[in-house]
Amino acid sequence: MSLDANAEQTLAKWHKMVAARDLSRVGSLCTPDAVFRSPVAFAPYKGAPLVAQFLQQAMLVFEEFAYHRTFTAGDHSVVLEFSARVGDKTLRGIDMIRFDAGGRITEFEVMVRPASGLQALGAEMARRMGPILAAKQT
Amino acid sequence: MSLDANAEQTLAKWHKMVAARDLSRVGSLCTPDAVFRSPVAFAPYKGAPLVAQFLQQAMLVFEEFAYHRTFTAGDHSVVLEFSARVGDKTLRGIDMIRFDAGGRITEFEVMVRPASGLQALGAEMARRMGPILAAKQT
Repeated sequence: MSLDANAEQTLAKWHKMVAARDLSRVGSLCTPDAVFRSPVAFAPYKGAPLVAQFLQQAMLVFEEFAYHRTFTAGDHSVVLEFSARVGDKTLRGIDMIRFDAGGRITEFEVMVRPASGLQALGAEMARRMGPILAAKQT
Repeated sequence: MSLDANAEQTLAKWHKMVAARDLSRVGSLCTPDAVFRSPVAFAPYKGAPLVAQFLQQAMLVFEEFAYHRTFTAGDHSVVLEFSARVGDKTLRGIDMIRFDAGGRITEFEVMVRPASGLQALGAEMARRMGPILAAKQT
């Protein structure tokens, strides 16, 4: 029940990017058809560029972001527990990440609690992602 | 990184109770001072009886409840991925459970997505837990 070596390598790169607060190359960790499942919306956002934009904007929104426990399921799935602050709201959450055989990210799902934290995060993400999503549709 | 035998045994009992949809004895799986961290409220609810009531009520609220992947961190923590329906809202979530050395539950944290599912769950839980919490305070 320990992570595949390729996935482990991707996860190490992810942690390095987060520590440096520089996610400019995060798209390179994802498969082209990777999906992002937001804590707010039901429908997934598809494609590495969009996954990257969500992660980049979220990183700008979160303050005092810190990872805690790392959970693994089989050799291709992890859950990373985190805490963060958005404005005056403290929140706890998880990144649930699935990797393909080559170690690239195929699915990045985020959940947070409590409701007040989700609301603050959702409002801030809508403000930032709204123009990006609107531009994509035109 | 596999679960301690005592915790494994508790987890097996939990799955059996959930499968039977009978959580009447779930309090016996918890330490007396166990805490429940709800997806809605920030402050934890303390004590095995209250943890049990939250889990029992949640089980009544969730329809088509199903567990999927099981993630472990060290030998005393698991994340159970689930999907469920509340009214006409589909939701995905996790139970993040921490066990003590004897295998009893010390912490049960729940997160769900998306926002519409959290809202439906929160409204239904408030309706059910409101009178229980009010009675405790008098």
